[in-house]
Amino acid sequence: MSTPSDTCTHPLDILFHPESVAVVGVSENSESQGHMYLRQLLDFPFKGPIYPVSRDAGEVLGVPCHRRLKDIPGRVDHVISCLPHHQVLELVKDCADKGVRSLHLYTARMAETQLAERLDLEKQVIRTAREGGVRVIGPNCMGLYCPESGLTFRFSLPKEAGHVAFASQSGGNAADLEYQGVGRGLRFSKIISFGNAADLNESDFLAYLLEDPQTRIIGLYLEGVKDGGRFLDLLRQSDGRKPVVLFKAGRTRAGARAVVSHTASMSGESAMWEAVCRQFGVVGVHSIQEMADVLLAFQFLRPSSGNRVLVMGGGGGGSVAAADLCELAGFEVPPLPPEMREEIRSFAPDVWSLITNPMDGSVMGGLEILVRAFQTGAKWDGVDLLIGNTSAVWLLDSPQLAARHELSSRFLVDLARESEKPMAIFVNAGDTRTPWRVDAAAKAMDMCREAGVPAYPNARRAVNAMAKVTGYFRRIRQGR
Amino acid sequence: MSTPSDTCTHPLDILFHPESVAVVGVSENSESQGHMYLRQLLDFPFKGPIYPVSRDAGEVLGVPCHRRLKDIPGRVDHVISCLPHHQVLELVKDCADKGVRSLHLYTARMAETQLAERLDLEKQVIRTAREGGVRVIGPNCMGLYCPESGLTFRFSLPKEAGHVAFASQSGGNAADLEYQGVGRGLRFSKIISFGNAADLNESDFLAYLLEDPQTRIIGLYLEGVKDGGRFLDLLRQSDGRKPVVLFKAGRTRAGARAVVSHTASMSGESAMWEAVCRQFGVVGVHSIQEMADVLLAFQFLRPSSGNRVLVMGGGGGGSVAAADLCELAGFEVPPLPPEMREEIRSFAPDVWSLITNPMDGSVMGGLEILVRAFQTGAKWDGVDLLIGNTSAVWLLDSPQLAARHELSSRFLVDLARESEKPMAIFVNAGDTRTPWRVDAAAKAMDMCREAGVPAYPNARRAVNAMAKVTGYFRRIRQGR
Repeated sequence: MSTPSDTCTHPLDILFHPESVAVVGVSENSESQGHMYLRQLLDFPFKGPIYPVSRDAGEVLGVPCHRRLKDIPGRVDHVISCLPHHQVLELVKDCADKGVRSLHLYTARMAETQLAERLDLEKQVIRTAREGGVRVIGPNCMGLYCPESGLTFRFSLPKEAGHVAFASQSGGNAADLEYQGVGRGLRFSKIISFGNAADLNESDFLAYLLEDPQTRIIGLYLEGVKDGGRFLDLLRQSDGRKPVVLFKAGRTRAGARAVVSHTASMSGESAMWEAVCRQFGVVGVHSIQEMADVLLAFQFLRPSSGNRVLVMGGGGGGSVAAADLCELAGFEVPPLPPEMREEIRSFAPDVWSLITNPMDGSVMGGLEILVRAFQTGAKWDGVDLLIGNTSAVWLLDSPQLAARHELSSRFLVDLARESEKPMAIFVNAGDTRTPWRVDAAAKAMDMCREAGVPAYPNARRAVNAMAKVTGYFRRIRQGR
Repeated sequence: MSTPSDTCTHPLDILFHPESVAVVGVSENSESQGHMYLRQLLDFPFKGPIYPVSRDAGEVLGVPCHRRLKDIPGRVDHVISCLPHHQVLELVKDCADKGVRSLHLYTARMAETQLAERLDLEKQVIRTAREGGVRVIGPNCMGLYCPESGLTFRFSLPKEAGHVAFASQSGGNAADLEYQGVGRGLRFSKIISFGNAADLNESDFLAYLLEDPQTRIIGLYLEGVKDGGRFLDLLRQSDGRKPVVLFKAGRTRAGARAVVSHTASMSGESAMWEAVCRQFGVVGVHSIQEMADVLLAFQFLRPSSGNRVLVMGGGGGGSVAAADLCELAGFEVPPLPPEMREEIRSFAPDVWSLITNPMDGSVMGGLEILVRAFQTGAKWDGVDLLIGNTSAVWLLDSPQLAARHELSSRFLVDLARESEKPMAIFVNAGDTRTPWRVDAAAKAMDMCREAGVPAYPNARRAVNAMAKVTGYFRRIRQGR
């Protein structure tokens, strides 16, 4: 992956670093979106002047409102519109007059309604914006998040910046990625929710993110593409220098219909998208949950194209399942070599014959043997990757035993931190109802995040994320 | 499904209704398994006399111990052995002398060690037991759970009985099924953990459960089969009168190796198992999580072979994903017919053109329209099945909004309760870290359980469970 430098000369970079922001369509109603954008920018905080614009309110959240954009005395770089659709055209003209660089249209009910007059309106808005030198994000979207400059669109987005960028046609899916990933440590350079993509589209954002030195890994949620040729050219030129993880929705007839009324997109052929992924080394995923899982592994794991896995921990049934999952995902789960079995025999004379790969944590007969067996396994040069399972379920059989779950999780997390091999950990998180079980699983996941170890709530998701990431690097290594 | 009656004449039924139980190998160490079995039986409680047997302890948990089985004055029907392997043969002889009917060997380190002397020992134990008229469960297993009689092997198993039976070669997987399912309302007639299956095996238990009037749905976790011919005959004769859900592990080389050291089983060909499922209407699953998901749908939903789904709730991106998932699972997601669109237009003039199937909850512009749209949809005779999504992610954006998530979940649960169509609900449960989000998701799942609605933590799992259950009934209807 490329080493970040501090400067970015791409023309879209200024979108993420405005010196001032106006929120147009603010009201005193704390549940209105304009009010929420204002509060989010004040709270985050955005690092420059924030101007609320409202026809009615004198002051919102302690900030005096302007009645029109042109009434703002200073320069305005970026505008967020929460106006209803029929007021947008006027706003675009005001933006052009004011020298605004970018306009984010939270405003919806445009082309996605499929009504002829709204399709026309959307076209007219974009034409007017282009003539006035204003770039448009949306309409029908949540806009921009950039922790570095303090732009945000959601209270729960982290203040801390990272190196993953996500560009999404769905605002809900952008929110979902936070929901699925941030608690496990996923951190972002930028999140872009761009809805109908009437002006700036997927290719514009992909081109920028491929250049952006703050971004090392790119996630995309697409319902359609505006310019397929340009998009493919970008993927071809990107040459694997940053992983691109793509969730392409609308794979079925029903999905394609839903895509039209969501972002007015044409979703295209499913088979074509699979071919695109194969040809250009794009990592395909099929849900936001899987997107979070894979981005997390790219973020935390050192690059590896290795294929041989050692699984440690859990009980017998879980070990069998993990072995099956690994091999079905294309990994090898090699048996322990005779010399390692002899070494294990020396410190575990009663149980050595039960210790294999996966290493079932429940046959060890004690923590001391478990620790020595796992440490021996982690050093074994016959494997490239490690997967740890904190959760033999009997450790979640009583609150007293849960203390032991914490011990075993801590040991696995330390092993992951000390090992030179990439390691993922899974914590069986099946019971959402019993508070001490919920706490025990959450505590183990927290330890992982703090140590920079990717954590998953079951074996399937851990194995899948490892397979997608190593598959990417294998393809890079083989020159595609 | 068959209607339960109260009598069962199957010879294995007495295993689940012993009049007395002895736990052999009890100690004062509260972490030893013998101590735990004793405490579990006292707590649950088991409804007859419980006799701890210990060479050393005078009294454990307030109950006087006997030094040998033969010292117990009364009759002993069922024995749980926590003795080490080298003491088991003597115990079996004692059991035979005492007229014990069934012996559960928690005792492990037998055939699964693959050591010649242990393979011999296991054979000798079973031969002696058979000669003495004692049936053996195990070795290397957790034993029997039957809430009706008070048998149990785990503190967290519910006291309330249900109609799902689970027979598992893995004790950890039996525990995991509780962990995955009980919080969502799964309830059992019996759980059987039978480990190495040296005497009573999968066919014995399947034959019994097919007859057992307390059991309406059967789950099986198998690592191998002892008698394939008999097992297939049972499936053939079962004739779809009770759903059988099978998780067959050891599908790969690595998995097959793990199976040997776990329960000394031969796992057989993966393709053969898939053919068995197809031919005999067995519902195949690939994890305990999926087992819980599918059993829950069988338990809660009225039988339906319907194929046309209406999805309600969530945001735009989630709606597209749900549509794709449904169609990929073989469901139809029909578009709303013109007359329903006109009806919706009458009460939602601004947004009607955005309301389709899936019904995106975020375009409604207010709760009133959402309620009317979903109620209209639920009555539509163009669909057979309903899926509700409680979790537009922005409802989990702040603790204040979470109150609205509760409202919307309550509405969906009421809709499910009142509808004649089978309905599943999913609650996006992605963040395990933020307490009010964890609570909001848990609260919605709790409402579902209390209303008898199957609940899932994401769309994929809801759709999959619905597809497996309706696929089963479709096959039944078509006479296979």
